[in-house]
Amino acid sequence: MPAPAEFLQYVDSQSDAFIGRLSDAVSIASISGDAAYRPKVVEMSNWLNAQLQAVGVTTKQIDLGTHVMDGQTLPIPPAILGRIGEDRSKKTVLVYGHFDVQPASKSDGWDTDPFVLTKHEDGRLIGRGSTDDKGPIMGWVNVLQWHHETQTPLPVNLVFCFEGMEEMDSEGLDDLVVRERDGWFKGVDCVCISDNYWLNTRTPALTYGLRGLVYFRLSISGPGRDLHSGVFGRTVHEPMTDLISLMSRLVDQSGNILIPGVDDMIGPAGAEELALYEKLDYSIGDVESAAGGKIALSDDKATVLMGRMRLPSLSLHGIEGAFAGPGAKTVIPAKVGGKFSIRPQKVGICCLHHRAWHTPMLWLILEGFVARFMPVMPSVVLVLIRLPHSLVPPQTPAAVEKLVRTYIESEFVKLGTKNTMQLELLNDARPWVADWKHWNYEAAKTATEAIYKQTPDLMREGGSIPVTLTFAETLNVNVLLLPMGRGDDGAHSTNEKIDTSNYIEGTKLLGTYLYEVAAHATA
Amino acid sequence: MPAPAEFLQYVDSQSDAFIGRLSDAVSIASISGDAAYRPKVVEMSNWLNAQLQAVGVTTKQIDLGTHVMDGQTLPIPPAILGRIGEDRSKKTVLVYGHFDVQPASKSDGWDTDPFVLTKHEDGRLIGRGSTDDKGPIMGWVNVLQWHHETQTPLPVNLVFCFEGMEEMDSEGLDDLVVRERDGWFKGVDCVCISDNYWLNTRTPALTYGLRGLVYFRLSISGPGRDLHSGVFGRTVHEPMTDLISLMSRLVDQSGNILIPGVDDMIGPAGAEELALYEKLDYSIGDVESAAGGKIALSDDKATVLMGRMRLPSLSLHGIEGAFAGPGAKTVIPAKVGGKFSIRPQKVGICCLHHRAWHTPMLWLILEGFVARFMPVMPSVVLVLIRLPHSLVPPQTPAAVEKLVRTYIESEFVKLGTKNTMQLELLNDARPWVADWKHWNYEAAKTATEAIYKQTPDLMREGGSIPVTLTFAETLNVNVLLLPMGRGDDGAHSTNEKIDTSNYIEGTKLLGTYLYEVAAHATA
Repeated sequence: MPAPAEFLQYVDSQSDAFIGRLSDAVSIASISGDAAYRPKVVEMSNWLNAQLQAVGVTTKQIDLGTHVMDGQTLPIPPAILGRIGEDRSKKTVLVYGHFDVQPASKSDGWDTDPFVLTKHEDGRLIGRGSTDDKGPIMGWVNVLQWHHETQTPLPVNLVFCFEGMEEMDSEGLDDLVVRERDGWFKGVDCVCISDNYWLNTRTPALTYGLRGLVYFRLSISGPGRDLHSGVFGRTVHEPMTDLISLMSRLVDQSGNILIPGVDDMIGPAGAEELALYEKLDYSIGDVESAAGGKIALSDDKATVLMGRMRLPSLSLHGIEGAFAGPGAKTVIPAKVGGKFSIRPQKVGICCLHHRAWHTPMLWLILEGFVARFMPVMPSVVLVLIRLPHSLVPPQTPAAVEKLVRTYIESEFVKLGTKNTMQLELLNDARPWVADWKHWNYEAAKTATEAIYKQTPDLMREGGSIPVTLTFAETLNVNVLLLPMGRGDDGAHSTNEKIDTSNYIEGTKLLGTYLYEVAAHATA
Repeated sequence: MPAPAEFLQYVDSQSDAFIGRLSDAVSIASISGDAAYRPKVVEMSNWLNAQLQAVGVTTKQIDLGTHVMDGQTLPIPPAILGRIGEDRSKKTVLVYGHFDVQPASKSDGWDTDPFVLTKHEDGRLIGRGSTDDKGPIMGWVNVLQWHHETQTPLPVNLVFCFEGMEEMDSEGLDDLVVRERDGWFKGVDCVCISDNYWLNTRTPALTYGLRGLVYFRLSISGPGRDLHSGVFGRTVHEPMTDLISLMSRLVDQSGNILIPGVDDMIGPAGAEELALYEKLDYSIGDVESAAGGKIALSDDKATVLMGRMRLPSLSLHGIEGAFAGPGAKTVIPAKVGGKFSIRPQKVGICCLHHRAWHTPMLWLILEGFVARFMPVMPSVVLVLIRLPHSLVPPQTPAAVEKLVRTYIESEFVKLGTKNTMQLELLNDARPWVADWKHWNYEAAKTATEAIYKQTPDLMREGGSIPVTLTFAETLNVNVLLLPMGRGDDGAHSTNEKIDTSNYIEGTKLLGTYLYEVAAHATA
């Protein structure tokens, strides 16, 4: 059941108006992480609420109470729950998105005002939130606009959940989802989230797995206040010396995690598995183009892909309390907090080769299964087929935290410093994988092939979208990540963009997906 | 020739008024390092200029042009040149001070408003600039007030040089000193600078040596922009991983500098020299009290003293470009610049023991010399006696920079990263030592004994005051550092203070010093 041809034509004809809608959305600087901009997030909630109502959605804005940020108690911007269609004979799809954005200012290095959507001649639509996540949300509104104007009933019932705190750990959302499980979200059959990106700039993708997050602050303190390095240099234990030494023991230049046990939870890949990564539509040039520098950790494609899709990662983000300005301040900071995070993986295929479950007999069964799918699914499926979800203990944040704590405590003792150390867990999210054989994924795959004439990469993503796990576990339904943007969009970075073709074809894709859900789910 | 008893009595009687003057000075937030406060530094220059004129000083404010800070072109606050007395039969003393201060705000952790001088019941006068360097400048004004009110001629001619950019590398001052060498500063016989601190909280001090400064930014860049750690973690070389690794190779937990050759320029101390440090009026408790934490690098007094007075130090200050805020931002910063500095020493006694010059015969001569001075000078003099200023090549910033560059370049290659590295010298100052046997020091010693009934510690300081070297070399006269405040004053820190007794007795000391200069120089 493809989408109506009239819908697809309408999307093309309304391209400028749809870009105008995205431009309006981007112009509201809905930065959730900056208290001064909090009213803008509320304004964005109100604006989106009106947009949804104008295309026929029944909505309510939900007060999520207050939270404390940087010592200030602030109201959480209201989430929006929406609903359109109540036909019990149709499937009900829950759509999630977020209307808040990361901080941005011209002085960060943007070429243009981040809150003025700027169309580049190559088709890029540049602006904060263009791809993360206002573009996808506007895509849904665009889909609804045609159905509303032509009075065409949707092929499924839609339920919406839009929040304004995603960039602030989705504060308040988990409670809302739990609260509305048997209320607003009752009867939801599957979830669709468009808040991530293609693996490259060419091939559409469906994402069935995410890494988790375990975010730490490692604090070292000693002096009663900041000291002058001239007066105190080489007389006292300097917290920065201790912290930098500890931080240097976490990860090596090849990305290997030096904390004993963390990488071991995954184990090395076998030759067969390596071969599968080789077949993905991906190149070293893709990662380097997306990163904006020839800095891939390896010249080997499979190694780089596994770094993102198969292995945990450890990044050092910065230091709180140290001198961070320009110039030459001769300070010995009294207390410094190193920020680093680990991205745990849900153990999958990667561990098969050293589990008892992996027998020659099993391989025969698997290969037969693969052979049946090969004509219609991309080679990456070979990886997925072998994914036994619960064969080995999962790399949970709690398990990782325990290893980190044990290691850092023992390394700290080795320093022989008189300063004191504190390790805090600031944030955590479990890794997630979905059943990619579900009709929700089949629908998305068929829709992608219809719009892009390409079979999508079926992939796991390196980042975390904690709400994915919340929906999957609370509502006990299949969750699909259906990205609209490309791998080089630069979410969270300067000059964030979405390509015009991704925004317009992506709008068609979202609409078509709904028709394919109706087709696949009832098949 | 002691100071008139009436002067000393007057200072006691005017204590409250003098504290009021310091309070007025502190209330002007003359932060030179913050563009927004630049008008306050100008206001401070005008206020001080009026204060000086009111006590009989002929002044002129000097326009020092503009400079660029954080990309902005800003006017340099006017310096003040002053003069009182033109009697050719008297010595002429040049007094230097600075009326700008370090940044401060309540949110940094101050107990009280940093720009409201707050008198604690224990006598501490707490406020930004109270000790660095408004207290000493007000001390000079206090001295002049009595002479002006009583129409008492000063025992010496005084020339003043006060600047408002000391905390910003004394921008523009070197040129002024050179320009006025044969003008405003013609005929200057010696210099007195009160801009440092006692070694402890009990014993007054004279300072005859300062460490230099070599301040670096070590930048690593690679990605074209900041990246999301979820998407890019373990796929690219992260600049922070490289930087932290390099920074961890600079200094160890005992304060030893790991850059080959830097510590070697000084060499180990001999047993006799160690014994001399043991005799200084100093304890581990002093450094820990000043630092506000039990974090001394050693429990051995001599080791800690040598860390400050004899050895170069290396401090890690912070990282520019990395995430420095609170919270949990999952960023891979694209370009990070690690700040660190080395404090070189002027090689002195420390190297004697492994030079040919050090012979038993020489020791006999030295010991005889020491014996003659012992009754009147403190034991620390034993160290100084042995100071052959130019026996070994000096530890210049240029020599240190060369070693740092060679080491970091070779360590960077070892990393095997694809990121790029840049090492910049942001700031440098040579170490300095003065001839402490000069009448300028004798005058200060006698004055100190008169006011404090204690023989001052004759010491070298760990910090740098580059203008000291400028005056010494440009005017070719002896420079004395005559500290007013204590070792725990917390210049540059939160809750910076000067003790009331140091401010009041220090005012007496400055006045008495002038009388002793007149006595010693003509003796």
